[in-house]
Amino acid sequence: MSTQLNETHDPSLTSWVDSANGGGSDFPIQNLPFCVFRRRGSSEAYRGGVAIGDQVVDLAALGDAFAGAARTALQLAAREQLNGLMDAGPAAWSALRLALSRFLRSDAPARPDVLIAQADAEYAVPAQIGDYTDFYTSIHHATSVGKLFRPDEPLLPNYKWVPIGYHGRSSTIGVSGRDFRRPRGQTRSSSGNEPQFGASRRLDYELEVGIFVGGGNAQGDSIEAGQAEEHVFGLCLLNDWSARDIQAWEYQPLGPFLSKNFATTISPWIVTLEALAPYRAAWQRDAADPQPLPYLDYPALRAEGAFDIELEVLIETEGMRREGVAPARISQSNFRHSYWSVAQLVAHHTVNGCALRAGDLLGSGTQSGPDAREAGSLLELSAGGKQPLSLPNGEQRVFLEDGDRIVMRGWAARDGRPRIGFGEVAGTVLPAR
Amino acid sequence: MSTQLNETHDPSLTSWVDSANGGGSDFPIQNLPFCVFRRRGSSEAYRGGVAIGDQVVDLAALGDAFAGAARTALQLAAREQLNGLMDAGPAAWSALRLALSRFLRSDAPARPDVLIAQADAEYAVPAQIGDYTDFYTSIHHATSVGKLFRPDEPLLPNYKWVPIGYHGRSSTIGVSGRDFRRPRGQTRSSSGNEPQFGASRRLDYELEVGIFVGGGNAQGDSIEAGQAEEHVFGLCLLNDWSARDIQAWEYQPLGPFLSKNFATTISPWIVTLEALAPYRAAWQRDAADPQPLPYLDYPALRAEGAFDIELEVLIETEGMRREGVAPARISQSNFRHSYWSVAQLVAHHTVNGCALRAGDLLGSGTQSGPDAREAGSLLELSAGGKQPLSLPNGEQRVFLEDGDRIVMRGWAARDGRPRIGFGEVAGTVLPAR
Repeated sequence: MSTQLNETHDPSLTSWVDSANGGGSDFPIQNLPFCVFRRRGSSEAYRGGVAIGDQVVDLAALGDAFAGAARTALQLAAREQLNGLMDAGPAAWSALRLALSRFLRSDAPARPDVLIAQADAEYAVPAQIGDYTDFYTSIHHATSVGKLFRPDEPLLPNYKWVPIGYHGRSSTIGVSGRDFRRPRGQTRSSSGNEPQFGASRRLDYELEVGIFVGGGNAQGDSIEAGQAEEHVFGLCLLNDWSARDIQAWEYQPLGPFLSKNFATTISPWIVTLEALAPYRAAWQRDAADPQPLPYLDYPALRAEGAFDIELEVLIETEGMRREGVAPARISQSNFRHSYWSVAQLVAHHTVNGCALRAGDLLGSGTQSGPDAREAGSLLELSAGGKQPLSLPNGEQRVFLEDGDRIVMRGWAARDGRPRIGFGEVAGTVLPAR
Repeated sequence: MSTQLNETHDPSLTSWVDSANGGGSDFPIQNLPFCVFRRRGSSEAYRGGVAIGDQVVDLAALGDAFAGAARTALQLAAREQLNGLMDAGPAAWSALRLALSRFLRSDAPARPDVLIAQADAEYAVPAQIGDYTDFYTSIHHATSVGKLFRPDEPLLPNYKWVPIGYHGRSSTIGVSGRDFRRPRGQTRSSSGNEPQFGASRRLDYELEVGIFVGGGNAQGDSIEAGQAEEHVFGLCLLNDWSARDIQAWEYQPLGPFLSKNFATTISPWIVTLEALAPYRAAWQRDAADPQPLPYLDYPALRAEGAFDIELEVLIETEGMRREGVAPARISQSNFRHSYWSVAQLVAHHTVNGCALRAGDLLGSGTQSGPDAREAGSLLELSAGGKQPLSLPNGEQRVFLEDGDRIVMRGWAARDGRPRIGFGEVAGTVLPAR
């Protein structure tokens, strides 16, 4: 996919939806992220929507508004799940984006009849996720977690060569706002051999970027790194809830399982790669790091392999809610720190002939940055549970308590360009059963 | 689920389908396994079928043959995927089995119009597999593979407490006969730090039993071990193809990924737990082994937690095919050696609130037995690639070569009861791209 800019990126564009203009919104007309939604509390069918300001464009209400490729793409985008649109490929995505941009511009006729206020909407997971893969792309996260699990060898010898990943659970992926119960499980006993059983006492979040696969590949085929972004529909925010005590006991030798598969939460909005084209960044490597193997290399990698997306995590405890204290930011990071690019993840995933399908979800892994305050999990922020975080109302946290609400936000903004926001992904910990 | 026998288990029953009678078939009237099929080479819709002798009963052709609960279940079983039937639960499965048994008995009117010869049929993966989980239930496999990967600590401290499992890939699960390409990938270099890239040179099979989940559980809920078999529709054979060199380099710290997800092959037939009721076996533990934690214990565990299912692996090389040499058996084992029961896998998988869905597939993990010739993979049979196997035509194997065809078979048979066969799962290694 080219990162060439086109008329939809013009910073001077404004919309007849006033709330999209003026710089305060995550969703100016240059963004146009997709979701699946319906009126809150209704029994309407879910259908595709696009964010503009504080409104959702109801794509199922647009009818015959567009022609040609945009019309075909609109029909796919209006469905209950976006797999068809994702499968349609970059030309279709681009045609629909252009048509939506023109439809929403200030000089086009206002069509408030196709809008629903976001405050009145509820969202669903926007695609049937056939398979969910979670990667481990932050070398800062891998190193600091490695120090806790393996003090003698924090970063394993394969890390700088292999985009480490593993398969996760698609059945428990939910959309922002869907709360979940604290998991129960086996944990290592502090005394003796017999493990303990009970509710996790080291429940954590992980700040990640989600990557929705567009058109896939046939089993046995591979997607070349240079073409890989043509197979990526867009990005979202992802919280990979993790039970560290369950993880520490179960993860050898086959990796995390029950410590992760109880809940994963994503933001409702998928921001397309085209919307993010003005926010590409150089791929970051230390001079001492090895060059990527040829199947992980491609012309655009070094200049613009990364995405400059600011990320932050906020916590709101039950106590803070009760006292009216605003959610407190406990971490900020940036997706540009990722050791592996999105295209490299796709190329690596398929180099062995593994089939990706439209709607598959890849997690980036926890996006910790180089600085300690950029750590993307409590495990790191609390140095393995040893250094409590102090919250504005005087509470402390090492891991999550029941009632804690975690909110993640993301946005791209630089060079005076409009803010391309991801909205938020939020979830609250309910007590164990 | 009760393992009480009923009229469908009567060993004296015979069918008006002659090939089902006389003891030579995998599919006597006491078995009645399900598949999804169509006429070979046709463009017909796939639909549900049941094996009887060398025929398939076309469930879509049965129309109004049954009444009541069996009729409702038949409508679900006739569909292109069996998820609806799997979701319907044990009472529906049992009603349909009884109706099929009565329909096919020697004293019922012959209905050859609803039969298609298995020789004229082709099969599909019988359900939409939402998530695929692979376990590691053979302590013999875990110990001998552990010796190769970690000579100092073959069996990790968690093994006897935690039914170890990890998530696999559903997009690359295929049905018997669907061949696959040898995967490419990174492997550890014998000299120096830089890994090699190329076709896997240590390609292996893994002899497993597949477990199709029936009705699932809501996220946040758990399935109790004592009720877990009510959530299992049936069993099949599963070959978890594995690239050992890719696995050794990539698997730390998050587990196997590209070394496994290029292909998994299952048999077309799902044998129901009800058909296997006469072949339950005692759950096997050494006296020194710990008792299972309470959430993994249930009344029927010790007396009949296991299944007495014979398993075997045959190899046919290109040379053997050319020379007309019959496939050679290289391993035989039995599912009763599994350290964890099927019910324990379901209870463990959901104890943290992870949601299972009808049609989900669990792999048992490689079913190696206590004896060396019962090893369920070449990695074990060749002692990590050091001791070649000699084949009847003079060839040798440490790992799989291009053109090798692996066939796995399984059957239950004892006490003079009819053979409840699983048919076979076969696959051939194609050269790397």
